[in-house]
Amino acid sequence: MTMSRIPQIYVGLFGLGTVGGGVYTIMEKNRELISKKLGFPIQIKKICDPDPKKSKNFHVPSSALTTKPNDILDDPEISIIVELIGDKPVAREIMSSALNLGKHVVTANKAILAQHGPELYALASKNEVDILFEAAVAGSIPILRSIREGFIADSIKSIQGIINGTANFILTEMSEKKRDFSAVLLDAQKAGFAESNPASDIEGHDTAHKLSILSTMAYGAIVPVDKVYTEGITNITAFDFEMAERFGYSIKLLAISKKINDEIEARVHPTMIPKEQMLASVRGAYNAILVNGEYIGQSMQYGLGAGSLPTATAVVADIVEIARNIALRVRGVPPMGYRIEEMPKAKIRSMEDIESSYYLRFTTQDKPGVFAKIANALGQNHVSISSVYQHGREEDKEIPIVVVTHLSKEKNMMMALKEIDRLSVITQKTTVIRIES
Amino acid sequence: MTMSRIPQIYVGLFGLGTVGGGVYTIMEKNRELISKKLGFPIQIKKICDPDPKKSKNFHVPSSALTTKPNDILDDPEISIIVELIGDKPVAREIMSSALNLGKHVVTANKAILAQHGPELYALASKNEVDILFEAAVAGSIPILRSIREGFIADSIKSIQGIINGTANFILTEMSEKKRDFSAVLLDAQKAGFAESNPASDIEGHDTAHKLSILSTMAYGAIVPVDKVYTEGITNITAFDFEMAERFGYSIKLLAISKKINDEIEARVHPTMIPKEQMLASVRGAYNAILVNGEYIGQSMQYGLGAGSLPTATAVVADIVEIARNIALRVRGVPPMGYRIEEMPKAKIRSMEDIESSYYLRFTTQDKPGVFAKIANALGQNHVSISSVYQHGREEDKEIPIVVVTHLSKEKNMMMALKEIDRLSVITQKTTVIRIES
Repeated sequence: MTMSRIPQIYVGLFGLGTVGGGVYTIMEKNRELISKKLGFPIQIKKICDPDPKKSKNFHVPSSALTTKPNDILDDPEISIIVELIGDKPVAREIMSSALNLGKHVVTANKAILAQHGPELYALASKNEVDILFEAAVAGSIPILRSIREGFIADSIKSIQGIINGTANFILTEMSEKKRDFSAVLLDAQKAGFAESNPASDIEGHDTAHKLSILSTMAYGAIVPVDKVYTEGITNITAFDFEMAERFGYSIKLLAISKKINDEIEARVHPTMIPKEQMLASVRGAYNAILVNGEYIGQSMQYGLGAGSLPTATAVVADIVEIARNIALRVRGVPPMGYRIEEMPKAKIRSMEDIESSYYLRFTTQDKPGVFAKIANALGQNHVSISSVYQHGREEDKEIPIVVVTHLSKEKNMMMALKEIDRLSVITQKTTVIRIES
Repeated sequence: MTMSRIPQIYVGLFGLGTVGGGVYTIMEKNRELISKKLGFPIQIKKICDPDPKKSKNFHVPSSALTTKPNDILDDPEISIIVELIGDKPVAREIMSSALNLGKHVVTANKAILAQHGPELYALASKNEVDILFEAAVAGSIPILRSIREGFIADSIKSIQGIINGTANFILTEMSEKKRDFSAVLLDAQKAGFAESNPASDIEGHDTAHKLSILSTMAYGAIVPVDKVYTEGITNITAFDFEMAERFGYSIKLLAISKKINDEIEARVHPTMIPKEQMLASVRGAYNAILVNGEYIGQSMQYGLGAGSLPTATAVVADIVEIARNIALRVRGVPPMGYRIEEMPKAKIRSMEDIESSYYLRFTTQDKPGVFAKIANALGQNHVSISSVYQHGREEDKEIPIVVVTHLSKEKNMMMALKEIDRLSVITQKTTVIRIES
């Protein structure tokens, strides 16, 4: 089949915020380039946003703007809707409505995909339309396309990702400028690198959303976000970076998933990575995803994970792919690489069963015999010590004791910590940073 | 259109060498996985190789093996041929024949694509079949797919690539073990990391082939390989690495192309890269490609660029993509992202017009006034010096003098070097390493 009779393809855009504005800009500025590559033009016909004043920021003609979703949903000429509203119930409603109306959907909504993705993919399948979401994970990096199509012949064994720019920006600043978390966060907020409510970024939830999507695709089994173990970076101190440096590690908020036999392990937490590994060099607001496949070996993709225009390039690439399929009158590849009807729920490995090395920072009273008590609790729980660092003694003050362990079972480690944190000489909850190597 | 009536799709494979064997292995071992993702099975029906004994290495049933190309070309059941013969005229003949017979082609043949690609793409277009070649550049890294589809909405401004594993392995060993080129090459040959005839790898030709393909796709204009300035790594010494370390650089064989106004700059040469850049950390046989786009910003992909199974994953991904299109009765995206009929020849920027900083290693007699003569020649040609290193003096011996320049025009630099190399105190041709920053 050739594209002899090409229908005029119209797009409806929901949300004229940072990414929506970028999509409008790119579709306008690169109109000719896209049309040349695609073989025909595509056009944004209507834009829906509750705040019509936003149109001024992106030179959108006011005639294209509406505040009523139905102006787009009910327009029979619009065959692709782009949802860039963010994590609000209305976003999910609009996507469901659009799919049920036989319209294709492009979205960047990682929160809704991580929570309701399978339901939306099933809806797309039922209505014989496509849903694509490259921009939901790692902005400009075409990692979903790469896993779905580039690595289609391989079995993926594990994924490690730095996929939240805000958290990585904060950790990089802490590391390079030897500053504490709260001071860096404040600066990041002032500079626009962190939102006024940064919880989702610094508590790891945004990273968990993306890991859920990545892992579902990589292993062909649904990894629900509420099964992803999630821990943020708020307890990391400048002292931890000092120690990391001493032991040859970087500290990153890492998304980790692994296929171990028939189980999937999925977790997000601050992680120490050996400095010589590529991921350790990912600085500032950049993202990177390392995929480890049976045949490809180690493969990494790196780039900007957020920002108006970088993220918009991924949205527009999805629009173009769907437009091409509309013109060819075919459906695209299933969004997760597998038919949703054939995707089982992943069997999630209990966090107790994972194995890791650990960095432990104990805060103790400076009394003789403290370390012996700690070592005793670790030993009795089969956690063996690899290195120890005791801070110079200062009379009558709290001091940190740092222990790095050999590979241990999480279950044993948690038992040991429970005992240790109960000791009277321990004055603060122990900080745990897992080590990947 | 749905895939209700799926034709059985058969593949014919030419060349059962390293990559061909890998393709057979993956198609066998991941038969179910591929069939599940694709929705139907695909099968290698025949394999053509002049040496039937190779079949034993990969457990190929001898009934599938032939030494006669026409056993595959004339088989009407075979709709996809996979060409993995290498840089021999017969490879081009087989691809041309297959395309003319209406068969789709998958190849990893960078040499033939760099020299005769446009002719083959036109043949595919004329015969309404597809030709794909992800494995031709950077093995397991899906960089061509990413440029063609992931970055479809963007204008690419430049590419920098470490895309020859052998050269990078040698340079990494030289750097980390402080050894000289020829000793490392010998070891690499023994260990199987370099071929017995390593010319194409160490002289930069293989890198130039791949840069020609990458650049043609990135800029949508044909960049013929004979227009790519190409220089190998054979003149780099352990001393150059010592100096690079001192100035904060790594030395890599870099493929560089840039779009500057309406001209394309394309060159391959040993290059100093600041150590803090991601490309500087690419060690051993790994490949990496950094794409700089107007909207995506910096984007890098990293992975194994060679080897049987990593490269085969890319070949099989192409087979799967074509099989899907056959089942849907559609043509794929044009191989270079643009219709070949609409691709102009690139206007190649003359090497004289490029701008770079330079590392210059002069070998001189140790006499007073030598540096003044060098500095004078550089100054008169408008090349300004950024740093200088003079080796400790040793009576009556040749000594190296190292100069790092500010950004200069290549033309001026070459004029200066011509004058300097003519000086009687200069005892060897000066080594030039360009610096990217």
